[in-house]
Amino acid sequence: MLTGKHVAFLGGDARQLEVVKRCIELDATVSLIGFDNLERPLSGASLRELTAELLRTVDLLVLPIVGPDEEGRVQSVFTNKELVLSEELLLALPNHCIVYAGMAKSYLQTLAEKHGIRLMQLLSRDDVAIYNSIPTVEGALMMAIQNTDITIHDSQCVVLGFGRVGMTMCRTLRQIGAHVAVGLRQSAQMARAYEMGIASFNMEAITERVAETDLLFNTIPAQVVTAEVIRKLPHHAVIIDLASKPGGVDFSYAKKRGVKAILAPSLPGIVAPKTAGRMIARTMTEHMLKESGQGGGQR
Amino acid sequence: MLTGKHVAFLGGDARQLEVVKRCIELDATVSLIGFDNLERPLSGASLRELTAELLRTVDLLVLPIVGPDEEGRVQSVFTNKELVLSEELLLALPNHCIVYAGMAKSYLQTLAEKHGIRLMQLLSRDDVAIYNSIPTVEGALMMAIQNTDITIHDSQCVVLGFGRVGMTMCRTLRQIGAHVAVGLRQSAQMARAYEMGIASFNMEAITERVAETDLLFNTIPAQVVTAEVIRKLPHHAVIIDLASKPGGVDFSYAKKRGVKAILAPSLPGIVAPKTAGRMIARTMTEHMLKESGQGGGQR
Repeated sequence: MLTGKHVAFLGGDARQLEVVKRCIELDATVSLIGFDNLERPLSGASLRELTAELLRTVDLLVLPIVGPDEEGRVQSVFTNKELVLSEELLLALPNHCIVYAGMAKSYLQTLAEKHGIRLMQLLSRDDVAIYNSIPTVEGALMMAIQNTDITIHDSQCVVLGFGRVGMTMCRTLRQIGAHVAVGLRQSAQMARAYEMGIASFNMEAITERVAETDLLFNTIPAQVVTAEVIRKLPHHAVIIDLASKPGGVDFSYAKKRGVKAILAPSLPGIVAPKTAGRMIARTMTEHMLKESGQGGGQR
Repeated sequence: MLTGKHVAFLGGDARQLEVVKRCIELDATVSLIGFDNLERPLSGASLRELTAELLRTVDLLVLPIVGPDEEGRVQSVFTNKELVLSEELLLALPNHCIVYAGMAKSYLQTLAEKHGIRLMQLLSRDDVAIYNSIPTVEGALMMAIQNTDITIHDSQCVVLGFGRVGMTMCRTLRQIGAHVAVGLRQSAQMARAYEMGIASFNMEAITERVAETDLLFNTIPAQVVTAEVIRKLPHHAVIIDLASKPGGVDFSYAKKRGVKAILAPSLPGIVAPKTAGRMIARTMTEHMLKESGQGGGQR
């Protein structure tokens, strides 16, 4: 249980609500900052303002999946007010406080290091990234169905990257009947792709492998879909970029060439906020319980 | 080849264009009626008006997938003009002419029988219905991803009907990680579901089997999702009705109960007109060639 612990939520989207619910179940004291437009109030949680005074009493601070931007601004779909987590406010947090975010940009990382604030980046955890790949891939599939005039079944798909998202993408595409080839670099990944019966190629040979592609899914967060690659794609091809911003595609060249290229937004929060939220809630509260010396066995 | 044959297309959507292209390739004389807003003119085909004079010269008349309505009106996305295939116009067709449609309503069926007009309903063919089930199911999947806040993976799905669409639906859902149970009546279908490792139940027991359902897909063209069934569904459940109009769901009760129920439109033409059109083109032109005594071997 989290009895006696003060958990504050600063901004977020529907996914956060699953974490809020779980914290209430675990008997924490829950404060919600930037949730004033919430459709239904959550009994067991209080709406609060973002003040140093409040933060001084917080044991666990939960930020949105996409953490503060480089100016410290925090997004919340539940308020119209601007929320800024300034250095001054961060300094108000007690020493033992843990700050949770999906991922932290350099603004938060730098400040956390500078002031010795404990920062927990959920999406850097392997388990969270793998769980999260499921809604990501379903979102990508939805976009692929929407943005082509062909079926995904029997289409020629290329996936770039065979990491946590790439593997889920390959398997899902294959399962619904697409022809899949994956671009990768590591020999162990090549062995795994072979074991799974998925064709693979070395990323160095990418330009030779995309000529017949209907759909290109990129999961590599580096500029790998270059102008040269796009030039080799058929005109009807659709590129879906799942890598985090700014993605891995030369979007301006794709536009010039008339090839449809889409930077997929944070898909889990869009297509499956409940499932994504539950996954995050589980991992986050397990971590909270462990840090409170009560971990283990909670599922 | 269809050299010397006059093929007229009366209305339709993007799917028809694939058939038009194939007929041009096969050297037919191609007339397009109700295609005046076509973005790019198709070289090898002439735009014509709907007149008895023209129809007298037609060997093969191709109607849209959804045939004329009960007043003889024919839909075309490529014109603003109203197209009506009246009894008088049908009588102008030569005796040897074959009329192709995806499906014919009683208006066309009755007139065809009355006047001995040869009518070919493509969607009544098993092969076409099975090919067509692929884009239908991808469209249903897209709608499921869009209309839920959970992933399809690990969700509880019920599919009603294990025919040409039902089987594709079950397999696809299972492949992407859903838990699937199918409602059916025939013992042979039950055996096939068992062989495929898919849980099944007799449709008579449906009200006992839907309590935990996240997604209910109906493929049975009869009122099977009754008020009693809907009352047993959880409030968050989403019903997707794939049966042809008017579908198999008590929509007014679903609305009253606050359960989201969607009558899926003609999905293949929406999500994959090119693939769906190619499938139709292949089957239709094979039939045309066969009727012209030149069938076989064309793929």
